Amino acid sequence: MKILGIDPGYGILGFGILEVIKNKIRHVEHGVITTPKNFSVPRRMELIYNRLLDIIKKHSPDVCAMEKLFFYRNVTTAIHVGEARGVVLLALAQNKIPLKEFTPYQVKNNVTGYGRADKKQVQKMMKILLNLDEIPQPDDAADALAVAWCIAVEGGITK
Amino acid sequence: MKILGIDPGYGILGFGILEVIKNKIRHVEHGVITTPKNFSVPRRMELIYNRLLDIIKKHSPDVCAMEKLFFYRNVTTAIHVGEARGVVLLALAQNKIPLKEFTPYQVKNNVTGYGRADKKQVQKMMKILLNLDEIPQPDDAADALAVAWCIAVEGGITK
Repeated sequence: MKILGIDPGYGILGFGILEVIKNKIRHVEHGVITTPKNFSVPRRMELIYNRLLDIIKKHSPDVCAMEKLFFYRNVTTAIHVGEARGVVLLALAQNKIPLKEFTPYQVKNNVTGYGRADKKQVQKMMKILLNLDEIPQPDDAADALAVAWCIAVEGGITK
Repeated sequence: MKILGIDPGYGILGFGILEVIKNKIRHVEHGVITTPKNFSVPRRMELIYNRLLDIIKKHSPDVCAMEKLFFYRNVTTAIHVGEARGVVLLALAQNKIPLKEFTPYQVKNNVTGYGRADKKQVQKMMKILLNLDEIPQPDDAADALAVAWCIAVEGGITK
């Protein structure tokens, strides 16, 4: 089973791919989709969409994980994250990839054992859990791996 | 010139088409795209996207108008409206339709002459300005016509 994790964003969208084979979780890839600031918002959405379709085509994920959004520092940010989320949701529906959402608490709890852990701790744990040489960079990609991790462990799968 | 106005939403998205010929503004069509509550969010996004592409194909609008979002009653609503907006923005970019955004103040001012007019007044004015037999229904469609109207009048075009 291949899991796509996404940390949606406007200027930068993190993604991570994990594979579960015989109860083992394997890191496949992580990275970000960035969009140039001087592009119009519609063009930035198109860029996110096209890059995401490339990732889906390359990895054929069976399921996608995203964080459930509850609150945001400000509503403008929330709308922009929402816009990026909309494009992601569309790509998932078109490719018949089911979506599982997790609260920030669930992500932290699944990765660190503590639902109120800080983001740095989550990112550090992804390095450890996935046997990586370094903490996944940038933060958006590490966060995407963390939410992908949730599907693996919630499915009763352990490393 | 054909103008597509959109009032983005999750469960209901309003649209309106106006045509400007020789300085005259003509009402072409208005309506809504609704998505069933029992559909998953990704499927609802796909439905909005597909219906919107149908509308774009039918009318070939030259430009699209949407309201600029500044604030929302709550962040969850803002994210959902953002999701619908993201899908709209993608469809616009893919069809090379430029987007013009207007603040709620600009919409009200362009339609009623008073930037703090209430929504009902805006909707009533759309009936009058477009010589319709009735106030466009539902509200979402009337709001979409109102924002489309802004492009026509801001372009120095009068009825």
